[in-house]
Amino acid sequence: MHFGLIGLGRMGFNMRERARRAGLEVTGYDRNQDVADVASIEALVAALPTPRVVWVMVPAGEITDAVVKELCEKLSEGDLVIDGGNSRFTEDQRHAAELAQKGIHFVDCGVSGGVWGLQNGYGLMAGGEAEDIEIAMPIFDALRPEGERADSFVHVGGIGAGHYAKMVHNGIEYGLMQSYAEGYQLLAAKDIITDLPGTFRAWQKGTVVRSWLLDLLVKALEEDPGLDNIGDYVEDSGEGRWTVEEAIANAIPAPAITAALFARFESREDSSPAMKMVSALRHQFGGHATRPAK
Amino acid sequence: MHFGLIGLGRMGFNMRERARRAGLEVTGYDRNQDVADVASIEALVAALPTPRVVWVMVPAGEITDAVVKELCEKLSEGDLVIDGGNSRFTEDQRHAAELAQKGIHFVDCGVSGGVWGLQNGYGLMAGGEAEDIEIAMPIFDALRPEGERADSFVHVGGIGAGHYAKMVHNGIEYGLMQSYAEGYQLLAAKDIITDLPGTFRAWQKGTVVRSWLLDLLVKALEEDPGLDNIGDYVEDSGEGRWTVEEAIANAIPAPAITAALFARFESREDSSPAMKMVSALRHQFGGHATRPAK
Amino acid sequence: MHFGLIGLGRMGFNMRERARRAGLEVTGYDRNQDVADVASIEALVAALPTPRVVWVMVPAGEITDAVVKELCEKLSEGDLVIDGGNSRFTEDQRHAAELAQKGIHFVDCGVSGGVWGLQNGYGLMAGGEAEDIEIAMPIFDALRPEGERADSFVHVGGIGAGHYAKMVHNGIEYGLMQSYAEGYQLLAAKDIITDLPGTFRAWQKGTVVRSWLLDLLVKALEEDPGLDNIGDYVEDSGEGRWTVEEAIANAIPAPAITAALFARFESREDSSPAMKMVSALRHQFGGHATRPAK
Amino acid sequence: MHFGLIGLGRMGFNMRERARRAGLEVTGYDRNQDVADVASIEALVAALPTPRVVWVMVPAGEITDAVVKELCEKLSEGDLVIDGGNSRFTEDQRHAAELAQKGIHFVDCGVSGGVWGLQNGYGLMAGGEAEDIEIAMPIFDALRPEGERADSFVHVGGIGAGHYAKMVHNGIEYGLMQSYAEGYQLLAAKDIITDLPGTFRAWQKGTVVRSWLLDLLVKALEEDPGLDNIGDYVEDSGEGRWTVEEAIANAIPAPAITAALFARFESREDSSPAMKMVSALRHQFGGHATRPAK
Repeated sequence: MHFGLIGLGRMGFNMRERARRAGLEVTGYDRNQDVADVASIEALVAALPTPRVVWVMVPAGEITDAVVKELCEKLSEGDLVIDGGNSRFTEDQRHAAELAQKGIHFVDCGVSGGVWGLQNGYGLMAGGEAEDIEIAMPIFDALRPEGERADSFVHVGGIGAGHYAKMVHNGIEYGLMQSYAEGYQLLAAKDIITDLPGTFRAWQKGTVVRSWLLDLLVKALEEDPGLDNIGDYVEDSGEGRWTVEEAIANAIPAPAITAALFARFESREDSSPAMKMVSALRHQFGGHATRPAK
Repeated sequence: MHFGLIGLGRMGFNMRERARRAGLEVTGYDRNQDVADVASIEALVAALPTPRVVWVMVPAGEITDAVVKELCEKLSEGDLVIDGGNSRFTEDQRHAAELAQKGIHFVDCGVSGGVWGLQNGYGLMAGGEAEDIEIAMPIFDALRPEGERADSFVHVGGIGAGHYAKMVHNGIEYGLMQSYAEGYQLLAAKDIITDLPGTFRAWQKGTVVRSWLLDLLVKALEEDPGLDNIGDYVEDSGEGRWTVEEAIANAIPAPAITAALFARFESREDSSPAMKMVSALRHQFGGHATRPAK
Repeated sequence: MHFGLIGLGRMGFNMRERARRAGLEVTGYDRNQDVADVASIEALVAALPTPRVVWVMVPAGEITDAVVKELCEKLSEGDLVIDGGNSRFTEDQRHAAELAQKGIHFVDCGVSGGVWGLQNGYGLMAGGEAEDIEIAMPIFDALRPEGERADSFVHVGGIGAGHYAKMVHNGIEYGLMQSYAEGYQLLAAKDIITDLPGTFRAWQKGTVVRSWLLDLLVKALEEDPGLDNIGDYVEDSGEGRWTVEEAIANAIPAPAITAALFARFESREDSSPAMKMVSALRHQFGGHATRPAK
Repeated sequence: MHFGLIGLGRMGFNMRERARRAGLEVTGYDRNQDVADVASIEALVAALPTPRVVWVMVPAGEITDAVVKELCEKLSEGDLVIDGGNSRFTEDQRHAAELAQKGIHFVDCGVSGGVWGLQNGYGLMAGGEAEDIEIAMPIFDALRPEGERADSFVHVGGIGAGHYAKMVHNGIEYGLMQSYAEGYQLLAAKDIITDLPGTFRAWQKGTVVRSWLLDLLVKALEEDPGLDNIGDYVEDSGEGRWTVEEAIANAIPAPAITAALFARFESREDSSPAMKMVSALRHQFGGHATRPAK
């Protein structure tokens, strides 16, 4: 199989490599010509056998929009576009409809695995028509870990379902990380704990909380036992927000995932206007001293 | 009526004044001799008519313990001690039992009103025996706002009930302040809002959220429209913690009050170990950049 | 002054009455002809002096959209439409632009006060151009409580700012109600509290938590001391959701308001899929018994 | 090595079996004579070689207190008691001091692994003196999974540190389960998801959220794809509460773990007094209809 891959960043670069190791032929395009196989999307399209399969792996939002638009112009009826990026599921219907006007097929695919995917394989969640997914199956099989397909690949449902599942996956990820992190802070604050890294390490094999994230936590503490070189500023990439927005839209309580999202927001505040106000109120009613502003 | 008042700090000093304005005779004692009427608790006890009534208004915990212990030694059978401080309700049984061994009566009384109590009167919540509360009623009537007694005084229940009610009152207070503060931050962040202080001011008369705390919020913004001179570090005085501990002990969800408590904890962290860990984990799995530690 | 009022439901009906008591002339229209003054919007438009002022007080969303559309057709250049309903602030720009195409002016106005507004007056938050707001000032003055204008009316900012302020107001309202409600549950669960309604009643005059909502809480307990006739199912009207969505959009932590929103979602679940899963997991790892499904 | 094991319930029964399979000699006692090797603690003490090692695996609180008390009477100087149950870390100092009066040593050990421990081995976290832990090492090595000791056993710190680590472990566990459960509910509510169990199954190998709990979640859905036979009532065993209490005691925000705890409290309420109050308040200010009580 020979397919095109647009976007050779942190994720796409490794995915090309993993696909090639599995014996697939990949033509990769990126705006960064140092990593690209071809000079343009036009050249990529020209290089592929028909019906063409093009995997898009670029940042969600405007960049994905632009790539889909260009593919809509350059691809032909019967070709297939797979959006493997982190697009919001609501975008998928729009992209699918745009491409369908020219008879181009569309599949959305959530991809998890991070920088370890090259080595371990990626977890894949696809949305779209069964026949389109069947066409792309050699790619899915190349990217996912070895072993039973159903342990690392799923056809979740119709268009958008793959990204929806990935969005929720990431929301869960927020909650898991926050839970471990709160536990870390509790242990780190307690003076009777004399082997903090060792405690997490000893959770890796027999306990209920063992997980891949725990393994990474142990690795992080091996590299920097007190996390002395790591700031407490945490970005969010959008999918946590979307998960909470979906919780709201569907009237579903999601307090743990939301707590994780808000903790990131807080981590980025130099100064909290809300807490200034609480301090001001305490001063007003109780005469409690306020601290000077930072 | 003539009663003793131990503790002439921010609260007690004003309470003595308010009681005197109401025509009561008050003998006040404080370790700070500049404000005290007598030089010692012994002198205070000697100055009071029997059966004596002594109102204790000192910091909860060890200081209240010590004062109760000294009163236990110096007072006589039939006297009455009222703990008007912010003692945890669990302490009241202990203090009552200690005093009861010598036939001294005990009432716990939650007092709310802050620095405005001198002018407005205090809200009072008492726990104990009906006959003891009846004895102290002239004091309660002097301290509370004018108007119907039931609008500002309540005999909540048995020993400890007054402090329990005050504890929950303060827990609610945490939640109310946090709610206003979150709304403040939302409005302050929105550029289409051009009159932020005016918005809060206009909520004071006709809206659902009008309250005394809102009036104080308006006052705070009049004094410092951007809260530029106020830091975002917020203390907690204990009763918020006890409220959440009671929620846990009684298996009652209290997410809003707890959110308010945790927001204060966060406000006091120079750096969050938990968020350092989340950042470390994101780096481990996704190669996301971390910030240098502060 | 003579203005038109479209929508004579729980809010609009009382607002017409309050405006009339203040000496204004009001022509009201509602689909319910029992309460309407005229038979159609067309008739309402015909009845008003030019430039016309029409206050829209109908449910947000499709119904407001339809009314604005019809007004756009029937009104003339220089007329003014005021949306006093609970429209999302994002709708205001759209409505204003639609009307502006015909030279019709637009003001958005958040209105708070509930069923008590007829008697107490309404708190008002307006967004739009200063000259348009000036035109409508006699209406604002009629609807708001007596006393200083700035205590119950504010020109918050540009188009949408009035509804934005009202949205945040309602978000705060969610947090305030949740805080009182958590405190209520804590007090109700404690056996040493023997006078629960009396405790809330005694908070009304001197305490830090006194507020209009507390007065209503006292009234509710007077009517039904154990809330025995009231179910625990709580609707949400949209503005709480929008507030949390704005918190997310602006990366502002809003844990107390969000807790209040999620508590309502929970209150409406017959059975929680999430908690079924937690129970299933506990059974899987620990052999803990599950309960049969309801 | 030959040691005594008191408590042969869900955990202890399997631990005896695992220790025996590893070649250790175990004398087990339980009040249930069907599973016990000896008829009394006295008989167990008599059966053991000196210095004796006795592992206590009974419910925390009164039962552990009683067993420790009896061991204190029946054991001799130089013997060692290991509390492997879920005692609160604050109990450990008390138990250690009680035993120390007779020269009996004490180690606390958190044990994780649930019903799968027999097969997989248990994660172990020990607190106490290094020499005492060395004595018990053959037991630890028998109970933990094969492989490197440090991946499943840790000497966390002094007396109580083992149970403290286990407490935090369980707090994290609450947060992890809640996070997966919220994600489950979000996916279950979305109609574009047509293969819900398959989605979780596909997360098992390549994704960031893969974990042992996820494997169990997949297993639960295999057994009952809609969780139709499982109620949404979730108990808590105490350690989640203690974790939040420690967060409060140390002024550490723990919003995700606390959300998980409160979700369990909510799951057990037939009717929420707090939400009845919110409904009552909405009725009071806005005339919103309330539902009849259940």
